Amino acid sequence: MPQLRVALAQVNPTVGDLAHNADLVVSWTRHAAARGAHLVVFPEMVLTGYPAEDLVLRRSFVDASLRTVDETARRLGDEGMGEVAAIVGYVGRSPTGTPRVGRPAGAPQNCVAVLHRGQVLARYAKHHLPNYGVFDEARYFVPGDRLPLVRLHGVDVATVICEDLWQNGGPLSVVREAGAGLLVVVNGSPYERNKDDVRLQLTARRAAEAGCPLAYVNMVGGQDELVFDGDSLVVDPDGRLLARAPQFEVGCVLLDLDLAAAAADVTTGETQMQAGDGSTVTLERVVLSPAALPAYAPLHTGQAARLDDSAEVYAALVTGTRDYVEKNGFRSVVVGLSGGIDSALTTTVAVDALGADRVHTVALPSRYSSEHSLDDAADLAKRQGTHHQVVPIEQVVDAFEAQLQLSGLAAENLQARVRGTLLMALSNEHGHLVLTTGNKSELATGYSTLYGDSAGGFAPLKDVPKTLVWALARWRNAAAAQRDEPAPIPENSIEKPPSAELRPGQLDSDSLPAYPILDALLDAYVERDLGRDELVRAGHDPHLVETVIRLVDAAEYKRRQYPPGPKISPRHFGRDRRLPITSRWREMAAPRRPDPPQVATDPAG
Amino acid sequence: MPQLRVALAQVNPTVGDLAHNADLVVSWTRHAAARGAHLVVFPEMVLTGYPAEDLVLRRSFVDASLRTVDETARRLGDEGMGEVAAIVGYVGRSPTGTPRVGRPAGAPQNCVAVLHRGQVLARYAKHHLPNYGVFDEARYFVPGDRLPLVRLHGVDVATVICEDLWQNGGPLSVVREAGAGLLVVVNGSPYERNKDDVRLQLTARRAAEAGCPLAYVNMVGGQDELVFDGDSLVVDPDGRLLARAPQFEVGCVLLDLDLAAAAADVTTGETQMQAGDGSTVTLERVVLSPAALPAYAPLHTGQAARLDDSAEVYAALVTGTRDYVEKNGFRSVVVGLSGGIDSALTTTVAVDALGADRVHTVALPSRYSSEHSLDDAADLAKRQGTHHQVVPIEQVVDAFEAQLQLSGLAAENLQARVRGTLLMALSNEHGHLVLTTGNKSELATGYSTLYGDSAGGFAPLKDVPKTLVWALARWRNAAAAQRDEPAPIPENSIEKPPSAELRPGQLDSDSLPAYPILDALLDAYVERDLGRDELVRAGHDPHLVETVIRLVDAAEYKRRQYPPGPKISPRHFGRDRRLPITSRWREMAAPRRPDPPQVATDPAG
Repeated sequence: MPQLRVALAQVNPTVGDLAHNADLVVSWTRHAAARGAHLVVFPEMVLTGYPAEDLVLRRSFVDASLRTVDETARRLGDEGMGEVAAIVGYVGRSPTGTPRVGRPAGAPQNCVAVLHRGQVLARYAKHHLPNYGVFDEARYFVPGDRLPLVRLHGVDVATVICEDLWQNGGPLSVVREAGAGLLVVVNGSPYERNKDDVRLQLTARRAAEAGCPLAYVNMVGGQDELVFDGDSLVVDPDGRLLARAPQFEVGCVLLDLDLAAAAADVTTGETQMQAGDGSTVTLERVVLSPAALPAYAPLHTGQAARLDDSAEVYAALVTGTRDYVEKNGFRSVVVGLSGGIDSALTTTVAVDALGADRVHTVALPSRYSSEHSLDDAADLAKRQGTHHQVVPIEQVVDAFEAQLQLSGLAAENLQARVRGTLLMALSNEHGHLVLTTGNKSELATGYSTLYGDSAGGFAPLKDVPKTLVWALARWRNAAAAQRDEPAPIPENSIEKPPSAELRPGQLDSDSLPAYPILDALLDAYVERDLGRDELVRAGHDPHLVETVIRLVDAAEYKRRQYPPGPKISPRHFGRDRRLPITSRWREMAAPRRPDPPQVATDPAG
Repeated sequence: MPQLRVALAQVNPTVGDLAHNADLVVSWTRHAAARGAHLVVFPEMVLTGYPAEDLVLRRSFVDASLRTVDETARRLGDEGMGEVAAIVGYVGRSPTGTPRVGRPAGAPQNCVAVLHRGQVLARYAKHHLPNYGVFDEARYFVPGDRLPLVRLHGVDVATVICEDLWQNGGPLSVVREAGAGLLVVVNGSPYERNKDDVRLQLTARRAAEAGCPLAYVNMVGGQDELVFDGDSLVVDPDGRLLARAPQFEVGCVLLDLDLAAAAADVTTGETQMQAGDGSTVTLERVVLSPAALPAYAPLHTGQAARLDDSAEVYAALVTGTRDYVEKNGFRSVVVGLSGGIDSALTTTVAVDALGADRVHTVALPSRYSSEHSLDDAADLAKRQGTHHQVVPIEQVVDAFEAQLQLSGLAAENLQARVRGTLLMALSNEHGHLVLTTGNKSELATGYSTLYGDSAGGFAPLKDVPKTLVWALARWRNAAAAQRDEPAPIPENSIEKPPSAELRPGQLDSDSLPAYPILDALLDAYVERDLGRDELVRAGHDPHLVETVIRLVDAAEYKRRQYPPGPKISPRHFGRDRRLPITSRWREMAAPRRPDPPQVATDPAG
C-alpha cells in the first residue's frame, strides 16, 4: 500500500489577522516539511480565523482572503516547500453566485484550498452550513457542491469541512464510491464539555462509511466567546484510533499511514454523483503526483493522554482567558477580590493563564465587609503572588449618599457600582483589562448589578454554574497537592457560605435556592430547554420552578450587557440564546400583563 | 365582479404575550365585523409577536402558539364572528419535519391560518426565509411549500408572508396561474428610512405579476430594536393605490374591492406547480363560501397622508421609545440633561412618547460644566414641563480621587461613570428607566464612556447620526412653530459647538472630524460597506479615512454593551452588524500585530 506522512497542524489563528495567520501556515508547513511530511492539514478558515462573523460580508475582506491564499501558495513554493501539499482554509466566493436581497452575487463560501508547487490546485467549499447555537453560517455562506479528489503520491485524498462530518448526505457520502484512500476533515469545532467523546464516535463511524482512514484537524485557542480544544485525531475504518493530539495545546501531529492505492485507470475529469441529501455533488479529480512513494520506515506516533472532566473545563477557562487578553493586546488584568469563591477562582484562572506578574488584585471593602473577607483576599493574593492593594469604598459611598437618599436595592447596587467604577478607573489609568467574577448561576438568575460587579472586559466564569465553581476550586487545589505545591485557593474561601455582603448579614440563600438545587433546575431549564410542566414532572418543586423561570426569563437584559466569557456548555448566554428583551412569554401560566419584571428588564437591577 | 369588504388590521402585538395578542385579534375582528368586513387580515406572527427569536426553539412556546390559534378560531366563532374570515399569523410546525443537528424533527414554521366559523380551515407556511440584516429566520424556521387558495364569497384568495413578496419565485409566482382574485401579503416589515417608497413600487409590481389586487398588511409599533411603521396598503394590478394606512399608527383600514370571480368548475383538490425557484409548490383549494355576495354599495376609503422624511424618522424614534418603555412595564424615564443637543432631543422624544409627567430630567454638573450648560438644561426642562433636579457631581468625584490618583482619560471617564451611577441610583430608587443620550456618530467611533454616558436601558438616538440629531431638533422646533406652539428645544442647545465638558475647554472637534465630514464617511463605511480604497476613490481624505476606520473597527466592544435603540438605517449597531471583538482586520494597510486598539477593545475606554 502507498504510504503518506500526514501532519495535523493544530494551530491558533486570530480572526482578521491574515498576515499573521499566513505566517502560521508557512512556519508550520516548514516544521512539517523538515520532518518529511507529504501532506499538512490546517483547521477551518485558518487564514481568516474563525468565526469571522460579519467581516465575511465585506467585499474587501473576502478579496483579502483570496489574495492571501494565492500569496501563501506562492510563498510555500518560493521558500522550498512546494512539494508538500498543504490544505488551508479561507473565505472564498461562489463561482456561480446566488443574488438575493441583502447579498450581492458571488456570495461568500467557507473554503479550503490544496496548495502545491506554488499554486492553488484544488478548492472545496463547505456543503453543510451549520446555523444553530453559536453558528450563523447560513447568514454568511452559500453551500458548495463540488468535491475535489486530489491524487498525492498515488493516494486519492478527499477533504470536507466540519459540519459536513456531522450531517448525513453531501460530499462525505460519495467518498467511498469515489474510491478515496484518505478522508481529511478540517474543523473549527468549539469546545463543549464531553464533546471529545462524541467526536471520537462520530469520526469512527464516518471513517467506516468512507472506507478509508479519516484525519480530523481542529483549531485550538480562544476566539471571543469560543474556545477550540484541538483534539485532532486519525481513525481507521475499523474504528481504531491511530493518533490523537493533546487538548488545548498548539502543535503538530505527524504520522505515517498505509493507504489504498488510487485506481490507475481513473485520473482526471468530473463526475456527477447523487449525494443522498437531495443534492448532486460534482466529483473533480486532480492529480498532483500519480506514483506511490518508495517504501520507507514509518514514524511512531502516540496518543496524547486525555484530560479528566475538571481538568478539561479548567483548561478551557484558562485558554479562553489567555487568548482574549492576548488577542486584544492587553498586558495585564485586574480583579476585584472579595474573599469569596468566585473572585478566588477567577484570579487563579488568570494567574494560570498569564502568570502572577500580569495579575492585579484589589480588595474593595465596604462597611458591610466582614473581617474574614479582607483576610481571605489577602491570603489568596499572597499564595499566588499577585499585585494586591486595598481600596476602601465607604467614603465614596458616603459622598453619593450625601447627594441622594437611597434605600434597599438602590443602596446595595450603589456599592457594587462604586466598586465597578474603581476597577474601571484602575483599568483606564494602568491599561489593565478588568475581569469580572460572576458565575453562570448568578448570570442566569440576574443576581448581579449592571455596571457594578458585571462591569469589565471578560468574564472567565460566565458559563460555569456555582456548584462547578466550587468543584473546580477543589480540583485546582488537589492538582497542586499532587504536584507537591501549596494550595492556591484558601480553604476558607471554598467553605464559607456565599454572600454578596451588600447589607449586614446578607447571604445568597436569602434570595436564591441552595445552589445544588438551583443549578439542577437551571440545567434542565436552560441547557435542556424543558418547559414548566416537564420540570415539575421531573420532580422539581413547583414553587421553585416558577421562581427560577421568572428570574431567568427576566434576566435577559442584564445578560445582553454582560462581557464575553469562554463557552463550555451547550447553551451559554452569548450567541446561543437570543431572547427578545421585551417578551412577555413565561413558561408558567402567566398573569395577563404581568408586573414589570423585577430583575432584568429593569436595567436598574 | 364579486365584491369583498377587506379589513387591514394594522396592530401592535407584543412578543410572547399570546393572551394579549389573541385579544387584539378578537377585538379588531369585532371592530371589522361590526363594519361589515368579510375578510380581516392581521400582520405576520401576530399571535406570538415578531421577532420571537430563540423562544421559537422552545417546544413549549410552539405548543402555546398552536393552542392559541385554535382557541382564537373557537373564540371568534363563539362570539359571533365566525362568518368573517380572519388571516392570523402564528408559529407552527412542519408536518413533515426535517431532523438535523441542533434541531429536532417537526421544525418550526412561520405560518398564517385562515380562521372561519370557529375553525382553522387553511394554513400557509412562509417559503422564503430572510437571513440577513436583522433577520435570522434560517435559524428558526424551515420553509413551506404549500399555497392554499381560499374561496370566500366566490373569490379565490391567496396569502403569502413578507419575504415571499421580496424574492422572485416561490408561491407568489404561481398566484396568477392559480387564478386568484386577491393576493394577501402579511408582514412584519421593520421600518427603515424611505422604505415606504420601495414598498409601494414592489407591491405594484407584484400585483401586476399576480394579475389581481394585492393587500399588504404590516405590523406597527416598537419591539426591542425594531420599529414597524404600518403603512399597510392595497394596490391593483395596474399599479393604482386603492388604500393606504397611516404610518406608525394602530388602526384598521376597510375597503371594498371588486374582484375576479373564481372559476366555477375548479373547486377543491391539490395541484403541483413549478415555482420558478427550483421548488415545487402544492396548490391547495379550500372553499369557505362558493357564491358571490349580492351587490352592495361600497365604502369610500381614502389614503392617509405621507409623513415627510424628518417626521417619519422622528415618529420612528417616538414609537420605538414609547413601546420599549410600555412593553417593559416602566411608568417613567430619567434622562441626564447636559444642556447639549443629544440630551435635549432625547428628552423631547421621551416627552412626545410618554408625556412630560412621566419624564424626569437631572442636570449633573461638574467643575468643568459651563454656566450655559446648566441654564440650557433648566430652560429645556421648563419649556417641556419635565420633573427636573440638579445633582452636582464634584464632591463624589473628589471622594474617588481621594482613593486613586487618576489622570487624562481615566479622570474624564470617572466623571461620566459618576453620572451613570447617579442615574442608575435614581432608577433603582424610583423605578425610572434610564434613557441614554448617545448618537450614532459617537457610538460608531467609540466616543463615549462604558458604564458612563452609555449606561441605561434604552438609547433613542442610537441609530441617529449627529448631523441628523441637529436636523431633527430643528424640524421639531419648526413643527411646533407651525402649530403656533413654543419651540421645545432651546436655540442655544442647537447652535453651540458640541462638547463632552470632561476637561476645561474640551470640544468634540478636538477628537473627531467635523460632524458633516464624519457622518458622510460613516455612511459610506458603515451603511454602504465601502472598503478603504473605495472611500479614498470616492474623494474622502485618506488620512481621515484611516482614522475613522480605526475608530469604528476598534469600537465594537463598546457597541456590544450599548443599550438597544430604534433602528432607522440599513446598518445599525444591533443585530445588523456582528463583528468579532478580537478581530485584527483593518480596512487600511494594517501594521502587523497592531498596538492594542485604543478605544473599543479596551473596554476601559
